[in-house]
Order: sequence, then structure tokens, then C-alpha cells
Amino acid sequence: MTSVNYDQFFSRSGLAMRESAIRRMGTVLADARDMVSFAPGYPTESTFPWDAFRAIADDLLRSRQGTVLQYGATRGYRPLLESLTTLMATRGITTSPDRLTVTNGSQQGLDLVARVLLNPDDVVLVELPSYTGAISAFRSVGAELVGVAQDADGLNMEALDATLARLRGEGRTVKCLYVVPNFQNPTGLLVGLEKRRLLLDWATRHDLLIVEDDPYRDLYFEDVTRESETRAIAADDVDGRVIYLSSFSKTLAPGLRVAWLHAAPALMAKFEIAKQASDLCNGGLGQQMVHQAIERGVLAAQLPQLRAHYQAQRDCMVDALHGAFGTALTWLQPRGGFFLWANLSGPMDGDALLPIAQARGVIYVAGSAFFVSGDERRFIRLSFSAPTPERIREGVARLALAVTDATGAAASTTPVASR
Amino acid sequence: MTSVNYDQFFSRSGLAMRESAIRRMGTVLADARDMVSFAPGYPTESTFPWDAFRAIADDLLRSRQGTVLQYGATRGYRPLLESLTTLMATRGITTSPDRLTVTNGSQQGLDLVARVLLNPDDVVLVELPSYTGAISAFRSVGAELVGVAQDADGLNMEALDATLARLRGEGRTVKCLYVVPNFQNPTGLLVGLEKRRLLLDWATRHDLLIVEDDPYRDLYFEDVTRESETRAIAADDVDGRVIYLSSFSKTLAPGLRVAWLHAAPALMAKFEIAKQASDLCNGGLGQQMVHQAIERGVLAAQLPQLRAHYQAQRDCMVDALHGAFGTALTWLQPRGGFFLWANLSGPMDGDALLPIAQARGVIYVAGSAFFVSGDERRFIRLSFSAPTPERIREGVARLALAVTDATGAAASTTPVASR
Repeated sequence: MTSVNYDQFFSRSGLAMRESAIRRMGTVLADARDMVSFAPGYPTESTFPWDAFRAIADDLLRSRQGTVLQYGATRGYRPLLESLTTLMATRGITTSPDRLTVTNGSQQGLDLVARVLLNPDDVVLVELPSYTGAISAFRSVGAELVGVAQDADGLNMEALDATLARLRGEGRTVKCLYVVPNFQNPTGLLVGLEKRRLLLDWATRHDLLIVEDDPYRDLYFEDVTRESETRAIAADDVDGRVIYLSSFSKTLAPGLRVAWLHAAPALMAKFEIAKQASDLCNGGLGQQMVHQAIERGVLAAQLPQLRAHYQAQRDCMVDALHGAFGTALTWLQPRGGFFLWANLSGPMDGDALLPIAQARGVIYVAGSAFFVSGDERRFIRLSFSAPTPERIREGVARLALAVTDATGAAASTTPVASR
Repeated sequence: MTSVNYDQFFSRSGLAMRESAIRRMGTVLADARDMVSFAPGYPTESTFPWDAFRAIADDLLRSRQGTVLQYGATRGYRPLLESLTTLMATRGITTSPDRLTVTNGSQQGLDLVARVLLNPDDVVLVELPSYTGAISAFRSVGAELVGVAQDADGLNMEALDATLARLRGEGRTVKCLYVVPNFQNPTGLLVGLEKRRLLLDWATRHDLLIVEDDPYRDLYFEDVTRESETRAIAADDVDGRVIYLSSFSKTLAPGLRVAWLHAAPALMAKFEIAKQASDLCNGGLGQQMVHQAIERGVLAAQLPQLRAHYQAQRDCMVDALHGAFGTALTWLQPRGGFFLWANLSGPMDGDALLPIAQARGVIYVAGSAFFVSGDERRFIRLSFSAPTPERIREGVARLALAVTDATGAAASTTPVASR
């Protein structure tokens, strides 16, 4: 037996690959079953339409229609593409099958964008903070991510202008702006409608593309958000400047791996070839289960229930945090989606707190994972989507104990968790 | 509305992307329903274990076990990884979950290999001819493929040595050799056992990796091939020099998109991160359907049936070709798998014949698509896996008419199809 030096075989991308903070937290979770996890943005499993899927799978497999289990077209199952065209129209977005591709989760959509558009050292502008999955996909091809600060209604336009001017002044190639306007991962921020218009104008003026990632759009909380406030930037895109991604992972189930990508036909032709090289096609069974869930009204029935469910989950977490922390923790009020973005006050640090929290039996994602630049450690991302209300309360109590542990004896005289 | 010049946004990879010949044939097929297709290597849909899958899906969805529809670990569903370890042992390959990752079809495995190992201009040595999916995956990262001629038992070792020496003399970085030893796509060739040993020795001597792609291994034809002749190169790899790919697409169904990748732990850690960035994870439902199909004995029951089925399909095509062409067409006798690699005699050209065949209602893949170098147009790849025996006979008759059309009046006095 001779020993192989693998380092010599890795590509530059391979050498640079690092595990993401969120996936690492998933491993921690898998290793410790009593852990309360506020880390991954998993949907609540009990909300999946189990019985409807069972009936659909039974019909599809009984049919012995080859398309259910055979290889399929790279773009996706044609009837599903037709259904997506209709679904997109309900979002105000005009599309057609030649502008759509089904993807293996939105992560694959981001990966296709990276491969088709980005050379090493090309720049993608992103929100500060931004979604780690997008960061991984864009960095995997060697692109550089440059963050731009956000205001309460989304990106700060002056900062955006200044950043672009600086980068272009340095001779850098800026290809696109990546945004998650609806209930952003990780902040939960809802970008204002006026700001969306400004971003599209800005991209047109500077001849850039916008990559709009929209997985949470249907999960607005009706007590504080109107559907009209979720209008996609892509809905006002007449030039074909917006690449739009959305998914059924949060509304039907992630385990079917069905999401979609909408873009101008000239871009889509390349995305299709990149998908061919990546995995040939999505699975037929998953696509047809989603198609039937749309056609049979399962998806439409899910959405109001999911909105009410996740709103109640948010309420549970917010109430528990108020009870346990009082004013010692502040956060952006989530208006939809899965996440609460909390600001640790005083000397606390989300990275340093994590092992202490883990020892107390609760995990989250340290906010630093979402910042492509700067050393910002004040924030933590708490997902309220997956745990039961009881586990949310337990997890918040454990988090409060961890904060007490971290901040020392003064706090420990009045244990935070017993408030 | 302003017009967008998309070309400025494409990466070098994006600009270079070209549609594969096989997928293009798939589009032709979709557009013309009476076409007999010998083009894509699709398994026979009637052989899929429909009823078993229906029972399994029913049980899984009835269970409401979150893992069925939730996000899962990037490496794959743990019980499936355990089953794969056992399955690999039956192939003589020692592995463990830390050396395995479930992939979204073997195409994703090839893509992960490309991303983790290959820089632009790195060289991959491949068989002449070689599988187009691998060619696409490796080229998508800018790697260069260099072909090496094959003898009747596989790669010519002198040509392999000479090619490597030449490339290294030119200062090129050669990373690996890509091979499909069992019933190769497109030739159907079975590499000899002695040749396999020589290839592993060669890779060790020259400190290279071998990428062994093995989707057809279980589909040996018992009349002319013994299972022992399919022994994987990976079975004799003690150093961790072989990256091995296999799949359930040909033995259970492609529409579940479940395949796997086996490699040394140091490589697998990088493949896992690359898969995270690509699509986070495979779907739970597909993985658990495969896992149950293994555990319930569905897979084991399939294999002898599939061997007999595809052997009969081969017999049907071979008989039809003998009847229609006599000695005017020659081919390598398929000893397993899905493909017959035919050599057009005389002045005929597989590329030029294709539109003529299409006009007659039959398609195939022109052999030139599988050659990474040279201008080799004598061959055509005929898949006998998907059409019914009746359609195979009809397709061969149409092909004979096309050849008559192409070769002109002399042949047309005795129409080939009526023989």
C-alpha cells in the first residue's frame, strides 16, 4: 500500500471548499437528539400534505406512465412547466416554458447562475447579511461577494452606488446583484415596494442583472403583511434583467427537491446546458407529485394554513423571548418566513455564545456566517419554523441560561430562564 | 424597454456551453412521436418495479416520518449508506459511510469530480470513444479531455504510456483517467480483468487517480459473460486511488435520481461540500424508496429478470440487423448493458446518415459525439434498451431504408427493409 497525497489532485475550487455554518449545525443536531435546534430553516414536518401526497403517489405509480420513473427533459416535466406559468402569473410575473427550468431545489438554481455567469474574481453584490447557500454557490466558482448595508426597507441606495462606483473604478467586473426581498434569510426583512422599483431602475441604469431569490413569498404573516407587499422585482422586469428563483420546499416539502428558475430565454438556454452537465434532469416522481399537488388544489389549500401556522410559531418565539430576556435582546419583527434575527446586546458575541448554548442544549446559526465582509458578531439567527411550540419555549429558556452562563455571576443571581 | 446584451454576462464556461448530441436527440424524440429511437440509453419502463414502489411509497408516506419529505444530510440518508456498504461488498469493494455520498444520478457524481479535482486546462485521459455525459461534466469546468485508443480488451497500454509521457513532457497537469470498464457507453466493451489490473498498476506507478464509472455492471448477459468478469477496478484498490460511481437508474428507475460515489475519505469530504453548494441534498422520498427496494429484496429480484430482458432485447436487435444488413454492417457483440456500437462500412458517415434516418423515422446517436479527438464518423450508437421488440425491428428496417437512401440507386432496386 502506497499513500496518496490528495492535495495535489484538488482544483483551486476544491482546495478552497469549506463547510457551511448551517450544514455544520445540521451535523450537531443529528449527533444530539435532545438538542433544541433553532439552526436550520426546516419547515414543520407535520404541515406536509402527507395524505394528499400518498394518494397522488399511489395514482402516479398505479398509472405506470413511463414519465413518472424515466429520465425526463432537462427543463422539467412539461405539464409542471405549464402549471408554473400559471402560478407565476398569480405573482404578477409573465413567463412561459421557454423562460423556465425546474431545479433540484433553489440551491441548484443558484449553482446554475454561478456556473453560467461568474468567472473567478467576478463580483456579485449581496445584502449585508446575505443567505449562506448563495454565498457558497457563488464562491464555489471563485467569484467575490461584496456586501452592501441594508436600511429598514432594504439595501441602502447610496451605499450601493458607492460600492459599484468603487468596484468599477478598480476595474472589477460586477455581474449582478443578489437579493432576497421577501422575509430574507437570515434577517426576515421585507424590502419595501418603492425600494424594489429603485433596485430595478438601478440595475437598468448600470446594465447589471438582478438575481431575485424568493422562497418565502407565500409565507407572509397576515397580521402585519399584505400579499401586495411581496410583489416580486421580476413582476416589473420588462427587459429580462431579473433572474428569479422560487421553490416548493417551504410550501409543499423539501424532500421532493422541486424548485424553479425563471430568466430570459437567452440565459435559460445556458442554464439548461449547465443543468444537463450537473444532473441531466430532475426526478419524474417528485415533479409529478408537485404538479398534481398544484392541479388538485393541494398547494392552494396549504398556503393559508401555513401562513397561520408559521405566524403562530413566530408568536410563540417572540413571546418566549420577551418573557426570558425582557429588553436584553432585540430583534427585527418577522413579517413572514422562518427566521428571527436577534441582536445580542452589550459585550456578547454570537460566535462565542454558540458552544455555551450548545452545552445548554440549544443551537442557532451565528450571524457572522451571513456577512461576506466585516467582523459582525452581534447577531444570531433563530429559526422558529421547525420546533414545536413546547420546544421553542424550552429552547428559548436554554438560550437564556446560556446567556446567563456567558455574562457571568451578576446575571446568575436571577436565573433568566425562571422569569 | 431596453435590450440586454447577455453575452457580456456569461462566464467563460457559460460561453463555451454546447448542447450534447444525446440530449438533442431526446428533443427530436419528444417532437415526433412515431420516431423509433435508438438514441438515448433509457431503461425499459415496463421493467420498473411499479407495484413494489407503490407499496413502498404508500408505507413511507403513511409513516409520516419527517425524513421522507424533509431536507436531509448531504451525504445521503444514513440507512441507505449502510445498505450501499453491504451492496458494495457483494461487488468486492470495501467501503463505509465515510467513503460514500448519494448523488443525484451518476451525472452529479461526475460533476462533483470535475469541480473538486479539475482546474481549467487540467487533463483527463479518456477512452476513445467515451461517454458524453462525462465529457460534458469535465469540459464544463474547462478541463481538456485527451483520448486514448482501445483494443478489444480495453485501453491500449502503450498508447496510454505514450500519451501521458507526451502530456507531461509538454508540462501539462494530468489528474486522472476516466474509464467505464463494464459494457461501456457507447461501445458496450467489457474491459478484460488483466487489463483492469494493469490500469490500476499504471495509475499507481504514475500517481494518478482513476475515475471508474460503473452503471451497467449488473446487466451482464449470462450467455456470454460471467459476473466475475465485471470485477471493479475499485475492488483491488488498497491505496484509495479509485473514485467509483454507480447508480440505481438502470436497475430500479432513473426517475428517483439515486446514484452513489465511493472515494477515499479525504476526497469525499470535498465532494460533500461541493454537493452542498450544488443542491444541498438528494430528496428523501427517492432515497428511502431505493433503500426499501434493497431491504425488501426488490432489487435482488429485479437483477436476473433485467439481465434476461436486456439480453433478449440485444438478441432482437442483432437478429434484425443481420436480417436487414447481412454483412454490410458490423458491430461489437454486446456482452451486457444497453448499447450496440455499429461500424458503417464503405463511404458512409454516421453524421451524414442521421438526417436521412430521421426522415425515415429512426434516430440514433452519431458515433462522432463520443470522440474527444479525431474526426471519426464511421460509427453509430444504437440503444436496444428502451423500444419494444416490435419497434426494434421496425427501427432497424427504417435504418436499412435510410442506408439505401444514402447509398443511392444500386441498393434501392432491392429494398433492404423487405429482406
